[in-house]
Amino acid sequence: MPAGSIGVVETQHVQLFTAEEPLRMLNGASLGPVAVAYETYGELSPNRDNAVMVCHALTGDAHAAGFHSGAERPGWWDNLIGPGKPLDTDRFFVICANLLGGCQGTTGPASVNPETGRAFGLDFPLIAMTDLVAVHRALLAHLGIERLLAALGGSLGGMQVLQWALDHPEQVANALVVAASSRLNAQNIAFSAVARRAIMTDRFFKDGRYAEEGVSPATGLAIARMMAHITYLSEAALEEKFGREPNRRQPSVGGPGFGIDFAVESYLDHQGQVFLERFDALSYLYLTRVMDYFDPFADPGSLTAVRAHPVNWLVVSFESDWRFGTDHSRRIVRKLEGAGQPVTFREIPSTWGHDSFLLPVERYHQTVRAFLDRALEEGLR
Amino acid sequence: MPAGSIGVVETQHVQLFTAEEPLRMLNGASLGPVAVAYETYGELSPNRDNAVMVCHALTGDAHAAGFHSGAERPGWWDNLIGPGKPLDTDRFFVICANLLGGCQGTTGPASVNPETGRAFGLDFPLIAMTDLVAVHRALLAHLGIERLLAALGGSLGGMQVLQWALDHPEQVANALVVAASSRLNAQNIAFSAVARRAIMTDRFFKDGRYAEEGVSPATGLAIARMMAHITYLSEAALEEKFGREPNRRQPSVGGPGFGIDFAVESYLDHQGQVFLERFDALSYLYLTRVMDYFDPFADPGSLTAVRAHPVNWLVVSFESDWRFGTDHSRRIVRKLEGAGQPVTFREIPSTWGHDSFLLPVERYHQTVRAFLDRALEEGLR
Repeated sequence: MPAGSIGVVETQHVQLFTAEEPLRMLNGASLGPVAVAYETYGELSPNRDNAVMVCHALTGDAHAAGFHSGAERPGWWDNLIGPGKPLDTDRFFVICANLLGGCQGTTGPASVNPETGRAFGLDFPLIAMTDLVAVHRALLAHLGIERLLAALGGSLGGMQVLQWALDHPEQVANALVVAASSRLNAQNIAFSAVARRAIMTDRFFKDGRYAEEGVSPATGLAIARMMAHITYLSEAALEEKFGREPNRRQPSVGGPGFGIDFAVESYLDHQGQVFLERFDALSYLYLTRVMDYFDPFADPGSLTAVRAHPVNWLVVSFESDWRFGTDHSRRIVRKLEGAGQPVTFREIPSTWGHDSFLLPVERYHQTVRAFLDRALEEGLR
Repeated sequence: MPAGSIGVVETQHVQLFTAEEPLRMLNGASLGPVAVAYETYGELSPNRDNAVMVCHALTGDAHAAGFHSGAERPGWWDNLIGPGKPLDTDRFFVICANLLGGCQGTTGPASVNPETGRAFGLDFPLIAMTDLVAVHRALLAHLGIERLLAALGGSLGGMQVLQWALDHPEQVANALVVAASSRLNAQNIAFSAVARRAIMTDRFFKDGRYAEEGVSPATGLAIARMMAHITYLSEAALEEKFGREPNRRQPSVGGPGFGIDFAVESYLDHQGQVFLERFDALSYLYLTRVMDYFDPFADPGSLTAVRAHPVNWLVVSFESDWRFGTDHSRRIVRKLEGAGQPVTFREIPSTWGHDSFLLPVERYHQTVRAFLDRALEEGLR
C-alpha cells in the first residue's frame, strides 16, 4: 500500500426513503425506496463536527479513495483524500456517495422499478440538482450527522455543493465549488446534446430497454465519451501528450487510412472502450440533463437562505479549463458576493484543462488544504 | 436578383486525365478519368492574367457565387464574389471547382470505379493535399490558363492554396490563406476521429457500400456534422445566438426530457439534417483525413521552390476561431517569412469563430479587397 493511503475500503449500501415515505422529486415524481452506495474514510469525531461530504462528477462513483480489496487502482480522488493529504483522513470524516441516477450502486434508470418489476429505463423521472442533494441529505441523516463541516466537489460535484449550500446553508459550514458552473452555456449544452444523440440513435438503445434485451448502446456511449474527453483536456494538454504522433501501439492494418492512425485516436478509442465497462448509457443521459437544466440563480429566492445564514465559500477554476472555464466560476462568485457571502476565489494555473480538478495540481491542493485547515480550526460554530 | 449579384450561373463538367494518362496520386494509386465540376464567374482577360482560383473547404462545392436557375439561395461565398465585391467579377475571372474526393460532381469515393463498375467506396485511394492541387492544375490547363493572379481559400481551401503555392510558386502570383492550418494539432485530429467513428459505426455504413445497398449512414453523418458545427462557432457566438433559450419551434413532446428542449439543440439538429441532403459520408471520411495528414513543412524541401520564386502571401486568422485559430496562421507566417516570402498577416476581430471566413466580416472583406486590388495593379509580372 503506498504511503499516505487509506488502505483497503469497502463500499457500503443503504436503503433510504420507503414506498410510503418516498423521495419527492422536483418534477413531482415519487421514488422509494432509494438505494445508496457510499464510502467513508477517517473517523467521525465525538462531537460529529468533522464531516466532509465529497460530491462526485458526471461519471464518478462512491469509491473516492483507498483501494477495494485486490484492486490495483485506488479511488478516483485518492490524490486528495487520505492521511496527511489535503482532505486529511486523520482529521476529517469523509463521506462519498454515488449520486441518484448513477449506476454504481445508487438507484438510477437502470434499477428495477418496484412498481413494474422491470428496469425503469426512460420511465425514470427527470432528475434535478435538488434531488441529488435530497438523497445526500437523507444519507447524512441516516449516518446521524446533522451538519457538515464542508461539502466539496468538482464539475457536477461542485454544482451539487452549490445547490446544497444555497438551499441548506445551516447544514454546510464551508462549501468548496471546483471547476463548476451555475448555468451551462449554449456550447456546454451542445456537446451534451450530441453525446445524447449518439447514445439514443445507437441501434441497440432500444428506447432505453437495452438491458432487458441483452444488448447495449456501446457504440453510441463510446462516441459520447470520446467527444467528452476532448473537452476535458485543454488543446495544449492534448498537444503535449500526443501531438501528431502516430499510433505505435497497434498500427492500422494496411497503412494509413481510416483506422487508428494517430496516438490521439488510440487514446480516445481506449477511453471510449474502458468507459463501457463501468458506465451505463441511461445514467449518462439523465446526469447530463441535470447539468443542462441547472440554473439555481434563475430562482429569485435562491440567495435568501444564505443571506440569513452565510456559508464560507471557496470557488476554484483552472486557467486552461474550456468546459467550465473561469467565466463560469466568476459568475458564481459575483452572485455569492452580491449576497454578502464570504467567498475566496482562486483561478489555478494549470495546463490540464477541466481534468485538472482530478489531478494533483500543487497550487490547487495547497488551496484546498489551507481552506479545509481553516475550516477545521474555526469548527462548527 | 439582388444588386451586386452575378446572376444565374451553371455548373460545368469536364473529364480530366484518362485511363491511359491517369492522375498519379501521392500514395501511388492511379485514377482516370477524373470528372470535375466547376463554375466560372467574370471574363478572362485577353492576356489571361486576371484568373483567381477559389478553393473550397471540407463541405463546400463548385457553386461559390451567383444563383442556380430557380434557386433561392446563392453560392456559398456569394458575399465575397460578384460585381463590386472584394473578389470583383467585373475585373477578375474566378474559377471554383469541387475538389477531388468530393460529392458534388467531381470524382470521389461515391463515384463508379471504371475497373469494377461499382462505386469505389473505401477502395478509393487515400487522398493527399497534393492530389487536390494536381486536379485543380489539370482544370486550369484545360481552361488554357497558365498562371493564376491569385489562389484563395478558407480552412481546407486555404490548405490547398498553401500546398499549391509552395509546390508551384511560378503558377500562383498571390496566395490568400484564410483560417487554415499547416499542421492539425491533436485536438483537431481528435474531433475528426470522433466524427469518422460516428460515420463508420453507423449500422448502415456497410463498410462503405451503403449506396449499393440503398441505405445511408445518415445518423452517423448527422452526428459528425452536429459536432463539427459546435467547433465552427465560437463559444460566445453560440451563446449570443442561443444561450439557454428553450426550443420554441417544436417543443419536446411531454415536457422536458431527452428531446430537443433547447434552441441550440434545435439548431444542431437542423444543421445535421440539412447536411444529409447535400453531402456524402465517404467524402467526409476522405477529406477529413486529407486534413489530418497535411503537414507540408515537415518536408525539408517544402520551401525550396518559393525561395527561388517568391509568392505574395496574405494569411488571415480570426480572433475567436478555435478550430484553426491564430496560432495555426502564425505558424504558417513564421515558416514563410523564414523563407524570405513577402507575407501580410492579419488577425481579424470577429466573434463568429471559424465560420467567420464565410461571413461578410467588414475588416476581413476590406483586407481581401485591398490585397486583390494590389495584386491586379501589379499584375502577372
